[in-house]
Amino acid sequence: MRRKSLSGAACPIARTLDVIGDWWSLLIVRDCLRGRGRFSELEKSLGVSKNILTRRLRDLIAQDILTLAPAEDGSAYREYRLTDKGRSLFPVLVALGQWGSENLASGDPDPMTLVDRQYRQPVRKLEIRAADGRVLGPGETVMTRLG
Amino acid sequence: MRRKSLSGAACPIARTLDVIGDWWSLLIVRDCLRGRGRFSELEKSLGVSKNILTRRLRDLIAQDILTLAPAEDGSAYREYRLTDKGRSLFPVLVALGQWGSENLASGDPDPMTLVDRQYRQPVRKLEIRAADGRVLGPGETVMTRLG
Repeated sequence: MRRKSLSGAACPIARTLDVIGDWWSLLIVRDCLRGRGRFSELEKSLGVSKNILTRRLRDLIAQDILTLAPAEDGSAYREYRLTDKGRSLFPVLVALGQWGSENLASGDPDPMTLVDRQYRQPVRKLEIRAADGRVLGPGETVMTRLG
Repeated sequence: MRRKSLSGAACPIARTLDVIGDWWSLLIVRDCLRGRGRFSELEKSLGVSKNILTRRLRDLIAQDILTLAPAEDGSAYREYRLTDKGRSLFPVLVALGQWGSENLASGDPDPMTLVDRQYRQPVRKLEIRAADGRVLGPGETVMTRLG
């Protein structure tokens, strides 16, 4: 699929997709955010072959999105953990999830929803806001150089 | 790459990636959000082969993310336009762009930034907020069924 690298692209969206523009990578990050960091857990959760999983994990480590560390329970296991850079993908995953919840029916009468752990209320819908707080639609924004 | 369909997945992130989990699709949506909707404009902007572009556009129309309509300038051209469903991918693209701006250097001393068209100020960083307004980290949220 990839015909060229976008790693040096001026557009930050393109640069990001160059690094994580593969659904397995984002689903791995999703699982790690939820505390599933062992190879066997990821393999089972994602239903992916060992080969593909190994390659994606290696790429995510090379990109400084994951690290491999001893398991927190003191066992001999090692587990994949998100770096700060990896954890900061949280808004990307929330945006993907909110779009899916609103636009793609799962056929499930009681669908999965992202909630505040404390009060069990759905989180707010993501909005793009100006510095002064106004909600902005796509046409009210522009990509530009500020210099 | 795709070993199974995630279209019926309980997780809305997985369902979304099943539909737009391909970097070309999201870059096409990005260009359409910026008003580039003609085939020739997309081909040039993305540097992609006609074949791949044609296939992705067809998929995006099938998913009701794009429509093909007469050009607004009254010419004989037709152009791809985002549906409401497609336009609501805006937060996904902003989240991807903000992550890239913060985490992936472009080597550009004056990088591209998403600004409010009116005041030319960068838009606010996306945050996940609870119903009562608190900013939530990944560990303060959980995917659950509310029923």
